[in-house]
Amino acid sequence: MAFPRLGVIGAGQLARMMVAPATELGISLRLLAQDPTDSAAQICDHFIGNPTDAEAVLNFARTCDVVTFEHEQVPQSVIKNLENNGIKVYPRSDSFIYSQNKVEMRKKMDELGLPNPRWQHYSGGNVEISYPLIAKTITGGYDGRGVFVIKNEGELLDLHNDIGQPLLLEEKLTFDSEIAIMVARSPHGQAATWAATWTVQDGGICTSTITPVPDVSEEIATAATKIALNIAQGISLVGVMAVELFKVGDSLIVNELAMRPHNSGHWTIEGSRTSQFEQHIRAVLDLPLGDTSLTSQWVVMGNILGGEKNDMYRPYLHLMARTPGLKFHHYRKDVRPGRKIGHVTLLGDDLVELRNEVQHALDYLSGAVDE
Amino acid sequence: MAFPRLGVIGAGQLARMMVAPATELGISLRLLAQDPTDSAAQICDHFIGNPTDAEAVLNFARTCDVVTFEHEQVPQSVIKNLENNGIKVYPRSDSFIYSQNKVEMRKKMDELGLPNPRWQHYSGGNVEISYPLIAKTITGGYDGRGVFVIKNEGELLDLHNDIGQPLLLEEKLTFDSEIAIMVARSPHGQAATWAATWTVQDGGICTSTITPVPDVSEEIATAATKIALNIAQGISLVGVMAVELFKVGDSLIVNELAMRPHNSGHWTIEGSRTSQFEQHIRAVLDLPLGDTSLTSQWVVMGNILGGEKNDMYRPYLHLMARTPGLKFHHYRKDVRPGRKIGHVTLLGDDLVELRNEVQHALDYLSGAVDE
Repeated sequence: MAFPRLGVIGAGQLARMMVAPATELGISLRLLAQDPTDSAAQICDHFIGNPTDAEAVLNFARTCDVVTFEHEQVPQSVIKNLENNGIKVYPRSDSFIYSQNKVEMRKKMDELGLPNPRWQHYSGGNVEISYPLIAKTITGGYDGRGVFVIKNEGELLDLHNDIGQPLLLEEKLTFDSEIAIMVARSPHGQAATWAATWTVQDGGICTSTITPVPDVSEEIATAATKIALNIAQGISLVGVMAVELFKVGDSLIVNELAMRPHNSGHWTIEGSRTSQFEQHIRAVLDLPLGDTSLTSQWVVMGNILGGEKNDMYRPYLHLMARTPGLKFHHYRKDVRPGRKIGHVTLLGDDLVELRNEVQHALDYLSGAVDE
Repeated sequence: MAFPRLGVIGAGQLARMMVAPATELGISLRLLAQDPTDSAAQICDHFIGNPTDAEAVLNFARTCDVVTFEHEQVPQSVIKNLENNGIKVYPRSDSFIYSQNKVEMRKKMDELGLPNPRWQHYSGGNVEISYPLIAKTITGGYDGRGVFVIKNEGELLDLHNDIGQPLLLEEKLTFDSEIAIMVARSPHGQAATWAATWTVQDGGICTSTITPVPDVSEEIATAATKIALNIAQGISLVGVMAVELFKVGDSLIVNELAMRPHNSGHWTIEGSRTSQFEQHIRAVLDLPLGDTSLTSQWVVMGNILGGEKNDMYRPYLHLMARTPGLKFHHYRKDVRPGRKIGHVTLLGDDLVELRNEVQHALDYLSGAVDE
């Protein structure tokens, strides 16, 4: 057995963050990029091709021993074409569908007896959920895109008309917080979770994460772990998956699934003995999974969103001097307002101080505080 | 200020391990490799050229904002040529000389009042050190190469004749252990050390390291730190440096200097908040240095030396299942007997268990224990 070549469809920051653990493990990584300036294509062997082009993806996949994804925008037909041609591709199409199609996901959660909000597949007709409700495009949404708060029937009809596709309707929950938990599973069926994370949101965008979730009971933390493991087994996951949950009182409700390394698991790079990126590589190669223990009492991750500043290098002089333990991750993407262009992570025992330092770094990087 | 391009002369495993922190910091790394199959050239932007070719090195350096080294085999004349052409190159030639020339190093330690063994620059004539003694080639030695135990005058004359160059003679110390300490310093003069490491040796080759050094007093640990900081300042170091020391009773004696990331600091990748590789990048770019705290009570690193096995991938199945916390670093170099082809690191509280697990991994990888 030689060191395998792992193909990744996509070349954004998630693929970029796979480069380090692949290098450490001796795994050759090859990307299907859309452009040579893509975040990961800048630093990794790649082909140029469109992930929706079945022929291009197959040609790429034939140069790899195993193929995986860093985003959900690969059509089912393209994945099935790989499978029909004998390519080892993980997660498999019949698992991946649950992170691509929100109605299939809701049905599956019901089937597994896992906590859904009230939901309805809507293509006109009676609405069984009371207003205000949440309407979602069934495919293609992420980071708050494709999610709409609907106050009345008129708004719903307008949206349905605009989108021109059926919608998923969900009850609008009044939740205490949003929690995410990462889980990994290998073809052998070995599974592992990490500590659950509080994903702090602003306008549907995750701005920071705190791990482990502060102020939740042992029962809630255990319940989150069980839900993640049940889904992983129930959908025959291979790779890592983020399970996003709403905490409502003492209950958890499944919000979304993302079947790939995910922003809510970036803290694992420094905060766990095995990062989500290393674990994803281990899982899709069917290697035994790594230790997911925390390396610190608290781990705070903050997303760097594009702001007024274009220069992301000069702030190092101040931030590294102020907070010597702060770890930077720059994706080398063009700065655009609101775009995730990097993240910072800080570990330690004093959660208040960690949150203050991370917030200062984010404000400083965005230009919200002066130099 | 844009993200700078950092040039590294050399493309072995040390350059390979710089790729991950450079990527995280958004720094573009470019290597001067001798061959496209070099360990780091496999995964990083590179030029092909000989590090002894002043013109090739200058042409390479002109494409970079700052240049550094991953080995000591770059002639002083080549470095001075860069400096004379206005290239920012670190460490500077007048610092780097102390890791290239062992006689200059001994003189400097004397000048700084730091503990040398008895030593003599020998080009024939009287020998002032009693036999058995250690003879070293003045330049070019590493990993026990260029170091000879000399029992009598006859052996010395033969060696001197064979080498055809002056030698450095040193008293043969009876030492308790070998200790290494990594230190970093920036052009601003900011300096930082990591915890001192016990470098366990076998036949002049470091086989494993244990950090922090077990069974030494606070005084010895502090003395090691002071020596490292004194040397760093005394030679105007820029970058990271390994200071190798002999522990003789309650004293420390300076053995060798290596002015680059070093095998005795590989443990810092997982074992410290800031690795030697990230710190080297920060230092040569004159960025504030990172936190060097330990991430665990004990850190054990073991070198994977080429043995009977050629297949370095298959052992993952057993080793990852047995020791989920074991971190692997494969350099993707051809397996040759005795050659360093990778390393493993394990962190935890129980030093005996950590050492056992690392030793098992090394034995298994070398073929010394059956599958």
